[in-house]
Amino acid sequence: MRLAVLSGGVGGARFLRGVLDVIEPTDVTIVGNVGDDLEILGLHVSPDLDSILYALSGLSDEERGWGRADETWNALASAADLGGDAWFRLGDRDIGLHLVRSQLLREGRPLSSVTAHLARAAGLECTLLPASDNPLRTFVETPAGTFAFQTWFVARGHQDDVDAVHVTGAPEAAPAPGVLDALADADLIVITPSNPYVSIGPILAVAEIREALEDRSAPCVAVSPLIGGRAVKGPADRMLERMAGGTSPAHLAACYAGLIDVLIIDEADAQAELPTDVRTVVTRTLMTDDEARRRLARAVIDAAGSPA
Amino acid sequence: MRLAVLSGGVGGARFLRGVLDVIEPTDVTIVGNVGDDLEILGLHVSPDLDSILYALSGLSDEERGWGRADETWNALASAADLGGDAWFRLGDRDIGLHLVRSQLLREGRPLSSVTAHLARAAGLECTLLPASDNPLRTFVETPAGTFAFQTWFVARGHQDDVDAVHVTGAPEAAPAPGVLDALADADLIVITPSNPYVSIGPILAVAEIREALEDRSAPCVAVSPLIGGRAVKGPADRMLERMAGGTSPAHLAACYAGLIDVLIIDEADAQAELPTDVRTVVTRTLMTDDEARRRLARAVIDAAGSPA
Repeated sequence: MRLAVLSGGVGGARFLRGVLDVIEPTDVTIVGNVGDDLEILGLHVSPDLDSILYALSGLSDEERGWGRADETWNALASAADLGGDAWFRLGDRDIGLHLVRSQLLREGRPLSSVTAHLARAAGLECTLLPASDNPLRTFVETPAGTFAFQTWFVARGHQDDVDAVHVTGAPEAAPAPGVLDALADADLIVITPSNPYVSIGPILAVAEIREALEDRSAPCVAVSPLIGGRAVKGPADRMLERMAGGTSPAHLAACYAGLIDVLIIDEADAQAELPTDVRTVVTRTLMTDDEARRRLARAVIDAAGSPA
Repeated sequence: MRLAVLSGGVGGARFLRGVLDVIEPTDVTIVGNVGDDLEILGLHVSPDLDSILYALSGLSDEERGWGRADETWNALASAADLGGDAWFRLGDRDIGLHLVRSQLLREGRPLSSVTAHLARAAGLECTLLPASDNPLRTFVETPAGTFAFQTWFVARGHQDDVDAVHVTGAPEAAPAPGVLDALADADLIVITPSNPYVSIGPILAVAEIREALEDRSAPCVAVSPLIGGRAVKGPADRMLERMAGGTSPAHLAACYAGLIDVLIIDEADAQAELPTDVRTVVTRTLMTDDEARRRLARAVIDAAGSPA
């Protein structure tokens, strides 16, 4: 069974670990968000692609929830002492990856090729693709002004309410090589439990990816990032409340109108308002351990095959 | 008393610590070698400027003899795991500096301006200048072929005998802003106990710097890097033996023909062949501790003022 998965960072990466436990990794193509990429200290950082790479190669820090295990922070401290930017937390081992990526990009290789190189070197057997090789950059409109994604998310601690999300570069961006083929060839398309606005939204902002989903032949299953109307992590609930008017499964499904067939929701949301145009499947979605992740992955696969 | 000091890396840096203990730091301008600069992992590394900066700001690792104290090596290990170059040992704290330098250079600032920024941020009160803002690169001719300096020195462990040294970019290079003024205004010009071919040579390969030394009004004192005809560290003795025909003070002085007035030599070399065209001053040159460094610095200053 071939899967194409649209994924954000940390939550998506955690979900993908379960997927790769129950599906042959070589049958899985992951299309990762690059709207929150940034250039800092002269490094090209792709936080979502890296969260996926680290999680799937066993390099991620489970306790901290982001970045790498056994991490140190000396390069950033040294750079800060010398006047360099230090607001975006980059660990030393993480910087090692960014150095390799940035150098290959400067040599003229597209991000998809560099990502493939890094994924292979890290031992990934699945395919990891950026949504696009073109620079997409997510900006959020807030009452305090418009901010680049990481400025809002990290530097300002995503305190500001968000009125709108823009992804610059998206209209003219082409899907990275392999993305459209993966969507066309998939037996199942999955949207990870990620923020619909700033994690999945920038992938769908690429017109040809959105069109491929609209015209899909395979079923598309989205997993809700909400439990009881609350985000497990991050500002998805506040954003849904403000921009969609609520945090029910119906409100979430509206973000993916015309793009999904099934929405997987948590038991805690079964009594909330459900969407009328997509099927909902109720299960436990909190990924507390490997078994919980596998169970959720199986639920996604089963949901696609089960009758409406 | 204003000093202009032409300096290589580690040995020069060690000597400079003594100088700054006995001379007002604001009266000292250091002109550092940049012939062994390299681009690696997309970083611009200036090993000699950094050895000086680290030594003078108290950041250097005394035991290892190069690089920074309390250093870790995780970024390089990570980069190596992902296929990045790892033959040139870059510590995490060191990389922090290279990130800041490389970013500022990419923004279009010249190396001299970036170096001034880094030196100020590190708390240096003396002036630290690269010999030139233009790219100088040292190459060595050996029986095994011609190698870029760091390939020969680090990757090949300077095992190959050297038949000749070339500094590309030097003929057309301009001295960095401030270099000629420092040489013209100095009351004393000093050449640190460094390798004459690959540490001081690339500075003197800049035509206007060599001319300024030839036309100097202040005395120029060189400190021999040899003790008993042997280099304290590195391949200077082997290079002198092969390219100059010997390692006596006379052979060393010949490297600086027309450029120096005094050569400071160690007691262990007092019985070897002495130069006839420059005055020699015999002292103890091994820099075992702070007091030894200060004594050597005082000897240099005294030598310049004492009668022939």
